[in-house]
Amino acid sequence: MYIGVDLGGTNIAVGIVSRDGSLKYDKSIPTKRERKPDEIIRDIINVINEIIKEYGVERETIKAIGIGIPGIADKKGNVIQCVNLNWTDIPLKTPMEKELGIPVFIDNDATLAGLAEYEIGVMKGKESGVFITLGTGVGGGIIINGKIHTGFNNVGSEIGHMIVGENYYDCNCGRNGCLETFASATALINYTRKLIEEGNSETIINEKINGDLNKLNGKIIINAAKEGDKLANKAVDRLVKYLAIGIMNITSVIDPEIFAIGGGLSRAGDFLLDKIRNEVSKNKYFKALPVGKVVLAKLGSEAGIIGAAMLGKSNVK
Amino acid sequence: MYIGVDLGGTNIAVGIVSRDGSLKYDKSIPTKRERKPDEIIRDIINVINEIIKEYGVERETIKAIGIGIPGIADKKGNVIQCVNLNWTDIPLKTPMEKELGIPVFIDNDATLAGLAEYEIGVMKGKESGVFITLGTGVGGGIIINGKIHTGFNNVGSEIGHMIVGENYYDCNCGRNGCLETFASATALINYTRKLIEEGNSETIINEKINGDLNKLNGKIIINAAKEGDKLANKAVDRLVKYLAIGIMNITSVIDPEIFAIGGGLSRAGDFLLDKIRNEVSKNKYFKALPVGKVVLAKLGSEAGIIGAAMLGKSNVK
Repeated sequence: MYIGVDLGGTNIAVGIVSRDGSLKYDKSIPTKRERKPDEIIRDIINVINEIIKEYGVERETIKAIGIGIPGIADKKGNVIQCVNLNWTDIPLKTPMEKELGIPVFIDNDATLAGLAEYEIGVMKGKESGVFITLGTGVGGGIIINGKIHTGFNNVGSEIGHMIVGENYYDCNCGRNGCLETFASATALINYTRKLIEEGNSETIINEKINGDLNKLNGKIIINAAKEGDKLANKAVDRLVKYLAIGIMNITSVIDPEIFAIGGGLSRAGDFLLDKIRNEVSKNKYFKALPVGKVVLAKLGSEAGIIGAAMLGKSNVK
Repeated sequence: MYIGVDLGGTNIAVGIVSRDGSLKYDKSIPTKRERKPDEIIRDIINVINEIIKEYGVERETIKAIGIGIPGIADKKGNVIQCVNLNWTDIPLKTPMEKELGIPVFIDNDATLAGLAEYEIGVMKGKESGVFITLGTGVGGGIIINGKIHTGFNNVGSEIGHMIVGENYYDCNCGRNGCLETFASATALINYTRKLIEEGNSETIINEKINGDLNKLNGKIIINAAKEGDKLANKAVDRLVKYLAIGIMNITSVIDPEIFAIGGGLSRAGDFLLDKIRNEVSKNKYFKALPVGKVVLAKLGSEAGIIGAAMLGKSNVK
């Protein structure tokens, strides 16, 4: 058995996962991210101890613990940076191993969701694959030859910060043109808001949000687009345009066998998938260029826990 | 012994290379690219037979032949596309093996120059590295865990077609914003020409080319920049800006241990290297981000032959 921890900005989800990647038991607590790191780490340790007890498994049968963080860790298991949690240079592996006596491994949450899609999801059996999560930001998980690839300094697969064009606003990172400023749910909301604020009132979105732009969310925009709303489709198409550039850029570097689209926006389903596939095929740098297949991810929010557990498994067999 | 073939748009260079990557004997003939593919292939076969004879080596000691092409091949050794040579879907491995009775392997020329830098150049001993060639176009060679990585469909490492911004002219591939429209020698010449044509006459370049814009080349522009010429530095700095975005984009995907800058423009030496390093460090998406070291490639034009021979070696030990 393995334990997976999905440490998010809002909740901490912890689960017991079998060797074959099935989630046996899980529990979630609020992160309360305004707290100090050691208080949050203390909570994670407590929940791990709780689920071991509640699920009634022998402590010795837990071979490893994996933790997915919304940021970047180094290879020693220290958090280098987690913008959402306001963590910089926080040791995570060492203090947890000391307390729990079980090996702990850390990696980026999107990377681990990608690993879950590789172990039991749509990327299973593929030589290489890239998982792209479209949520608050844009994250990536890269599998090459059956292993997660995070690079020499562990800062790879941060595809949300790949520059793909010029945008009308800067990224939180201070640069301009990052994929996540075009292709995240946040970007979709920002651009739709901009279109409406510029006086494009002929949209059914206005009705859905009762004129209150703060009520805008990805789901409302996607649904309006599905209903044929022009403004909503303009916003979705812009997202898709840059996402396709991102997919082609990744192809131009590592050319994976498959791309799996996950995260909140992927719930738009085939409506979004068809648009992406269309745009990717228009974006080839020569007509006959073979490009990895683009599909929707299969796992939902449990991908984070499962992938984290699978990280443990890949390190301690 | 191995034979390496560097098939270029202008010349075909063929050489005999030892196991340890040293070039023992080589010969070059003009490509005459306006000819039909089978005439060019016939010439390559003839030169291979000639150098075996002239160097006086037993045919049986040649374990394999590698060929670097200025384009993309599939994994079966067929040329998918070579824009320079106007080749599309041309079988290359099979006809050559039939004639020569020696195993033949094909890959992209920049990929193989990168392999040469990995085997005997500046990337030697590194876990992963990306070779970037700045010439007529921009090419790439990617090494991951000691092996060339060209991806599932063999179309990876085409980093010249990574989109990194918006440009004032389109790429030959029909898209806008490809790295090679910003960072190749051609791009440097195009942009310098544009600045001069727009009426920026205060430049020592005008004197160097006697007012004839057709005499512009990378060397003249780089030398003018080294002498402190404002216009030349503006053009070089623009190239460097987008090259740094390209380097950061590659980092955001695969995060290699090292980047090696080669190709004609790399002869600008430390002048260019310092500018690139500076711009890369300004381009991090967070301050403490560790990024692979950027260095100048070590091998010159012989990298193509050596890398091609090393491709043969990696396939037939």
